[in-house]
Amino acid sequence: MAGTDAAPADALTDLFGLLAYAELVAFFNLSGDAERASSLADKAALGEMAVTEFGHFRALHDELTRRGAVPEQAMEPFVAPLDAFHARTAPADWLESLVKAYVGDGLAADFYRAVAERLEPQARALVLEALADTGHADFVVSRVRAAIEADPSRAGRLALWARRLVGEALAQAHRVVAERPSLAKLVAGADGESGRQGDIGRMFAQITDAHDQRLAALGL
Amino acid sequence: MAGTDAAPADALTDLFGLLAYAELVAFFNLSGDAERASSLADKAALGEMAVTEFGHFRALHDELTRRGAVPEQAMEPFVAPLDAFHARTAPADWLESLVKAYVGDGLAADFYRAVAERLEPQARALVLEALADTGHADFVVSRVRAAIEADPSRAGRLALWARRLVGEALAQAHRVVAERPSLAKLVAGADGESGRQGDIGRMFAQITDAHDQRLAALGL
Repeated sequence: MAGTDAAPADALTDLFGLLAYAELVAFFNLSGDAERASSLADKAALGEMAVTEFGHFRALHDELTRRGAVPEQAMEPFVAPLDAFHARTAPADWLESLVKAYVGDGLAADFYRAVAERLEPQARALVLEALADTGHADFVVSRVRAAIEADPSRAGRLALWARRLVGEALAQAHRVVAERPSLAKLVAGADGESGRQGDIGRMFAQITDAHDQRLAALGL
Repeated sequence: MAGTDAAPADALTDLFGLLAYAELVAFFNLSGDAERASSLADKAALGEMAVTEFGHFRALHDELTRRGAVPEQAMEPFVAPLDAFHARTAPADWLESLVKAYVGDGLAADFYRAVAERLEPQARALVLEALADTGHADFVVSRVRAAIEADPSRAGRLALWARRLVGEALAQAHRVVAERPSLAKLVAGADGESGRQGDIGRMFAQITDAHDQRLAALGL
């Protein structure tokens, strides 16, 4: 019988494996955005953010090792769903790429923050650190708002794009929790010890509400 | 009359600008290699090397600022030649990509080491730090040797590829020194105060000799 305030080891390995791979992919995506940025100053700024994400990846990787897990094995179950998400949401241009990073960061942050509440202090600190502000949101908001001011017709296309991103993210998230019962239990938390998919759906719905507020900040 | 042991400020700005942009591009290329690596362990290892290159970029960027230069302006003259080099040597696969990074690292290291001798201590320390071993060479040598052992027919193709890389690098380097007389003078050093292209050609020839020895280490 697993308690709800001390997550079982396999659920934590899952959580850190998922978060580690997500950070690694965020590093790749941000590096790519940096490379495609049109000014050297933007390349440098986005490169800094990419490096910060890699630091989070490293911390999670090392924590998995410390806990006796093999980091590559812990990440493995999440490679296919995260890669599928990214393959199905390949940005058509730099602006879509920025919006994607912003939406992805926001959803991920809300998700991990919700999960972090249920972790013991050390694990919680690590998760919250991986969410530490990279300055990325401010960068994206300023660039996207400027792009929409310069050409208001972009707003409609980007709003649709943001909807599609959330749809795909939820689809993959539901797939993951269906396949990882132990992680599902951790995610559903005290309100849903059984990890029922309805409980998880309600948690995702709350995250989606917060997402709508973030889009408003973008002018979408 | 510029002395040879105290490089003029504009030559140093050129040198640091060139090195900074080269490091930034090395970061992008290594991140791309990391993303394309087939195992999670290789992705993590190459990602670490990419982050190290970004650290070098940051140090050079900050040093340019400290010297009163605008880093983006200092890098700007080298964007076209370095981008042209990379555009003309786009790797066809991961193996070509590894060989390119190895050849490029080696040539750059020899070049900067030769130039560093002519700098005052602080500038020299910064240049030598940017060359600090990232562990990349060992990684590449082991992967490329294993690939050639697995399929010896790869050796001929990769040897040709390495020749082409050197040819393109020299072509771009000659273009740069032709256009930046102050940098040319610094590069030609005490033996060629006038920055004559013959002196520079002889220096490049020495670097090319060292390159041939490195290829032997790859089994090429």
